[in-house]
This record gives sequence, C-alpha cells and structure tokens, in this order.
Amino acid sequence: MTPHDHAAPFGTIDAELRIGGQPLSRLTARVGRTPFFAYDRGVLDTRIDELRSALPPQVELSYAMKANPMPAIVQHLSSRVDRIDVASAGEMQHALDTGIRPEKVSFAGPGKTPEEIRQAVAAGVIIEVESPTEIARVVAAGDALGVAPRVAVRVNPDFAVKDSGMRMGGGPQQFGIDAEHVPAFLAEWARRVEVVGFHIFAGSQNLNAEIIAEAQERTVDLVTTLAVHLPKPLRYLNLGGGFGIPYTERDRPLDLAAVAENLRRLVDGPIRDRFPEATPVIELGRYLVGECGVYVTRVIDRKTSRGKTFLVVDGGMHHQLAASGNFGQAIRRNYPVIVGNRIGAPSDAAGPVSVVGCLCTPLDLLADQMELPRADIDDLIVIFQQGAYGLTASPTAFLGHPAPAEVLV
Amino acid sequence: MTPHDHAAPFGTIDAELRIGGQPLSRLTARVGRTPFFAYDRGVLDTRIDELRSALPPQVELSYAMKANPMPAIVQHLSSRVDRIDVASAGEMQHALDTGIRPEKVSFAGPGKTPEEIRQAVAAGVIIEVESPTEIARVVAAGDALGVAPRVAVRVNPDFAVKDSGMRMGGGPQQFGIDAEHVPAFLAEWARRVEVVGFHIFAGSQNLNAEIIAEAQERTVDLVTTLAVHLPKPLRYLNLGGGFGIPYTERDRPLDLAAVAENLRRLVDGPIRDRFPEATPVIELGRYLVGECGVYVTRVIDRKTSRGKTFLVVDGGMHHQLAASGNFGQAIRRNYPVIVGNRIGAPSDAAGPVSVVGCLCTPLDLLADQMELPRADIDDLIVIFQQGAYGLTASPTAFLGHPAPAEVLV
Repeated sequence: MTPHDHAAPFGTIDAELRIGGQPLSRLTARVGRTPFFAYDRGVLDTRIDELRSALPPQVELSYAMKANPMPAIVQHLSSRVDRIDVASAGEMQHALDTGIRPEKVSFAGPGKTPEEIRQAVAAGVIIEVESPTEIARVVAAGDALGVAPRVAVRVNPDFAVKDSGMRMGGGPQQFGIDAEHVPAFLAEWARRVEVVGFHIFAGSQNLNAEIIAEAQERTVDLVTTLAVHLPKPLRYLNLGGGFGIPYTERDRPLDLAAVAENLRRLVDGPIRDRFPEATPVIELGRYLVGECGVYVTRVIDRKTSRGKTFLVVDGGMHHQLAASGNFGQAIRRNYPVIVGNRIGAPSDAAGPVSVVGCLCTPLDLLADQMELPRADIDDLIVIFQQGAYGLTASPTAFLGHPAPAEVLV
Repeated sequence: MTPHDHAAPFGTIDAELRIGGQPLSRLTARVGRTPFFAYDRGVLDTRIDELRSALPPQVELSYAMKANPMPAIVQHLSSRVDRIDVASAGEMQHALDTGIRPEKVSFAGPGKTPEEIRQAVAAGVIIEVESPTEIARVVAAGDALGVAPRVAVRVNPDFAVKDSGMRMGGGPQQFGIDAEHVPAFLAEWARRVEVVGFHIFAGSQNLNAEIIAEAQERTVDLVTTLAVHLPKPLRYLNLGGGFGIPYTERDRPLDLAAVAENLRRLVDGPIRDRFPEATPVIELGRYLVGECGVYVTRVIDRKTSRGKTFLVVDGGMHHQLAASGNFGQAIRRNYPVIVGNRIGAPSDAAGPVSVVGCLCTPLDLLADQMELPRADIDDLIVIFQQGAYGLTASPTAFLGHPAPAEVLV
C-alpha cells in the first residue's frame, strides 16, 4: 500500500489531511503543540463496523489494550467491543475504570507477579494462567481472599503460524502451557478451581488470511482434544487474533472476508456442535486501533548534506520506535509518511528526502530517501498506522524532550 | 569479556554481588521492590579517576548526560567532571540545577526547536549549531533577549570512523555542518556572533583505540584548516568521545592508555602549538557511567517448554530495550547476565536457560540460552553495563507496569 492509500480513510480538505473532520492545520492549532498522536474516532468506528458485519454474530470481540491504552480509546471501545484483554494489573485497573464487568476482562502474560494475581483474583477477571506456578498462586489468592477465581488456560499450541510478524506459539515458548501437558495440568487443577476455557494464540501481525484460517481451524481441533479433560462444558474459547495491518509498500491488507468466512464455518459447525455453551472470542489490538492513528510532527529544519536532503522534525524515535525500525524488525522499511499539509502536490523536484527526528542519534530515522512533495520549515509530517504500539511502545523519556500530546477526535 | 569479568569491579560478599558496599539481597530490601537500576558510586568514581590519571591535565571532561540523566548521577558528576553536554532544553534545565556554570554546558542536537534555542541563549550555554537555520535562530534570539549568544559549530567531518557502534560523521549526515561548507558559514556568521570553537564527533561506542586515535588526529587536522576562518583564536575544541564499553562476550575493553597516549601527543604538540588558547574537551557518556550500573530483576517463574528452560522475571524489555536487542543492533547478542545471589555456584546441570521478561511479546528476551547457576523463583537476575542508555532509552510505559526504581549507592 502507498502512503496515499493510507490517507484515503481519513480524507482530505483543501490539500490537507482530514482528522476527526478537521483539516490537519486546525487540529494542530487545537492541540497547541507538536508532535502529537491523533486517533480518528470515525476511522476507528468504521473498523469496528467492518468487523461486526464480517464476523459471525456469536463471536465476541476482545480489545487487547496493550496496543493502545489511552484512557479515552479504552473508554470508547469499552461500549463497542465485548471484552478487554489486559497484560498487567495497571492495564486491568484502567480497563475496570471504564465500567466494563470484570468477567469480560481477561488477563494474560507470562510474568504476572503474585501481587498482580492477587489483584486479578480480587477483581474477578478471567486469569489466563500460563504455568503451574501461576495456577498455584491463583488458588492460594482465591483461598486467602475467599473468592472463587475465574481461570482460563493459555495453551502453547503444538503448531506454529507461518509468516506472523511475531511468533508466539509452537515450539518452546514462555507463553502458556504446552498443549501436550494440558491434560495432566487439568487433572491436577480443574477440580480445585473453575476453568472456564482456553486461550490459544499462535502469532501476531499476520496479513495472510489463509494462514490465519488454518490456525483457527487447528485451534478448534486442539481445543477439541483438550476440552474433554474439563469437568464442565467449555464456556470460553479465545481463538486469539493476529490480524495484521499493512505498514510498508510491500504489504497488502488482510482479506477480512476470507478470515470471516472460515470463522463462520467453524462457528456454525464444529464449535457449535462440540462446544454448545462456549463463547468464541477473537482478540484484536493492532487490527482494531492501528489504522485510526497518525503521528504528526513539524519540520524544524531542512538541510542538505553531501547530496542528501534531510527534513529534521520536532518528533522522533522516542515516540516512533517501530517506524525507526527498532521494534523487532530484522530489516528497516519505511512506514507510510506524507506531508500532511501538501496532499496532491508533486514530488520534490530536488529528489528524495530523509525525515529524521530531533534526537542526537543516527537511529532516529523516520523515513529514508522517500519521494515527498517539497516540504519546508513548519510543514507537518504525518506518519500513518500509529494507533497501535506507537506512544507506549517507545522510549519517550530518551533525551528529555516533553511527552507528545495524544488526542481522540 | 565474561559476565564474571563484569562482576569483578563490584566485588562479592557471601556469594552475592556487592553494590554500593552492600550484598545484593540487602540492597534489594532497601530499595523495597524489583526491578530496579542501581548505580555504584565507587565504580563510577574509579572510572573518573582512571580517566583523570590517563588523560593529559589540559583536557576537560564533559559528561554527555543523555547517557543517564538521573538527577543524582548528574549532580554527582557535576563536581567531578568539567562540563556537561545536553541534548534538549529539558536536559539543560537539569544540568543547570546542579549549579554548574552555564559556560560549562554545551547543547548539541540536530533538531533544536526555536523555543529550545531561545532557552539556551537565555541560559548562556554553548550552543553547538548544526545548520544555517539554527544560527539564524540563535542570532535572532540573542537580539530579542539582548544577550550575546555563546556558539560553537558542530562539524560533520570529511572522514568517517570505522567500527563505531553508531556512525555519526562522514558522508551525508543530519548532524552538524559539512566540513567543506564551514568556511562560507563562518564568513557569513562569525562577525555577527562569537564562535568559540568546534565540535567534531564521528561515531560512538568504539572499542578500537587505534581508530579513536586516528579520528582525533584527523579532527585536529580538520580543525586546523577550519580555525583560520575564525576572526578570533580558537577557544573551544570538542574532540567528541566515542569511547566504547564491552557488552558481549566477543567485546574487549578499550585500551584507554593507548587513546590517552595519542591524545597527549596531540595536546602537547599540534593543539598547543596551533591553538594556544583552546581548551580541548573529550565528551563521554557511556564510557563514564555505563559500567557502574546494573539492572536487578526477580525470577517469578521457572518453566520448561519442549526442552527449553525459561526464567521469567518481573522486569523486561520495557526497561531493557538494548539488552533485548532492539536498540540499533543488527544481530542480538547476550549482554552480561548473572544470578546475582548465586555467584560462584556451578552452572545449572539442567543446561542453558533463557531469561525472559514479563511482557506478552517474544521480543522480551533478556538472555538467550545462557549457562547460569541453577536459579529459581525469587532469585535475583543481574544485567551488567546498565549505567548508560538503560532506563531512559527504554519504552517504560509499554504494557502499563510500574516504573522501575533507580538508586545511586
């Protein structure tokens, strides 16, 4: 996808990107400073509508808030999705602040501390246990608090998902309990604490519908072999997510219809037949919020050095770790970048430019030799796909610059 | 260097690492929680003493506080080094809080905002200008405030430094003014604002004394050709730093004596002869503070998955971006890691272990298949070389965990 394609869902007004219905320059004036993250409520709601229309109605949507924990986003989504998944006690508190019922909150993560487990038991959320140590702590906390814990088992599947941005299942993993040990695990624990179901998640940021479909199918088969070891019928079936979004020019959007069609076949077939009491859950973070967000940063210098042109901006990798290529990427590729107040202008006749941040490190590279319209001091650079794993996944304190603003519009 | 070598400067007490004179377990109790960063004042002072004994007395030491801006560290160093280098107005405020005189503070960075430049002019620090745009802003701010700005020129040299961890000079760069344009730049500006000297810095994290010596030699030659374009004698000659520290087992410590010997030759020869009024400055961040710091994190789970053993700790990549391999490294290699309360114990008979953080991402890998003494829940994992580019260079807000503690002991 080209940067132009990424601008389309937002639209333009008078050669400026439109965000939250306003031209970029006016939104920038409203925010009062650069750099900032802006999340477009309309684009976000469109994504949810697309998902709701595509996915079978029995499927509940869970928001993995690690993707973007901004309170306004979490509050907005709390009434539009069915569940929230949290990755720490801190996230759990924010999720519960929205008013969502605790039984609609799941808590996953390989390193929950004993204190976090105690907090989660007290809150009454679904604790997705990932080891024998964890379930012992859950049971002890439940006994100490006089509360019956809600537990699901996170399973490390016996298959891997190809072509995922990050592989999180199959082979040896710190995540979950190996599928082959789940029967013995349930034999030991499932009569001491209620196990409502399973969470199986094999990989994230996948753009290939066929592979996601295959993973969901194998997940249902795996759960079929595991659920017979539960003393009660399966009620919670978290199939994970892993739906990717396109970042680079080489990426193509996920074929959501194909994923949904396969899911419908599973939900109306084996899931209904084998687990009539189960709620199937799809857990999405990046796919829900990633595309609604942009990062806006102002050009503060334009300089030429030995034949290369640099646009120096007031933001940088301290807010944009992934766009700088330092968040798990083996090879850095440009994210979609535009000059947000020069849409439709021809490419700079002077040739490609590099957009660099204000940090005193060569790592602070936001766009490498891109064809952009001629940009000068005070122009606004926009980076797309910034609604997920942007601000909180970046080293914001690095070099002591002020925190960026963040708005939901 | 092995992890054992890294423990040596700290010492041990009863099979525990000693930090700030205390056994690790007692320090952990004092801090009151894990994870935390601890910086050992004795190890830090030893490094300064080594530098002072090795370097010629005319050379002033500048602390590049971007490496570690903890206020107690900056305060401690402010009376032990001669200068502080800052990379933002935020850092500048903290540097001035120590009581250091503003003429001993330098402000470098390719993306200083107009507001930051105004603050720096008002403060009276040395502004290392990196572009024609910047100097125009400096002059305008000086006029508006009625203050004569202190300016040095950051030069992008016409040579590169091989084998640097990060190359920051030579070829096209966002840093500084290309050497070949400096004469014209000075012709335009050096009668409108006082230019005290130059800063030339070609690369950081270099472990090869010969290459650093060569860079310093070429820097002096370059300054010789540039200084003739100054209307007054050169007073400030910032030779940069770039002294590296060993992180992986393949790394060998820098031969400081060799660097110092070359520097003495330059200082007592060409620098004294050609620039009798100049103060030579060596600017160091990582080399000053990197080795005095450790990161301490507690084992909260030990699990085996398909033949691999994982120690899950309560810290992670949100505090350890570099150790996780996501801070500019092309290839991830293990940082020096020990079990801080089991020093001298034999390696785990069960084989190598991987230390993983508490985040729900496979990126959160702190040690990959290392031979460590048998460690279990509540043992303390220590990562060395954490005094520089640790906490502030990490995405601390990621997944909503509490910030780590930080102590200077």
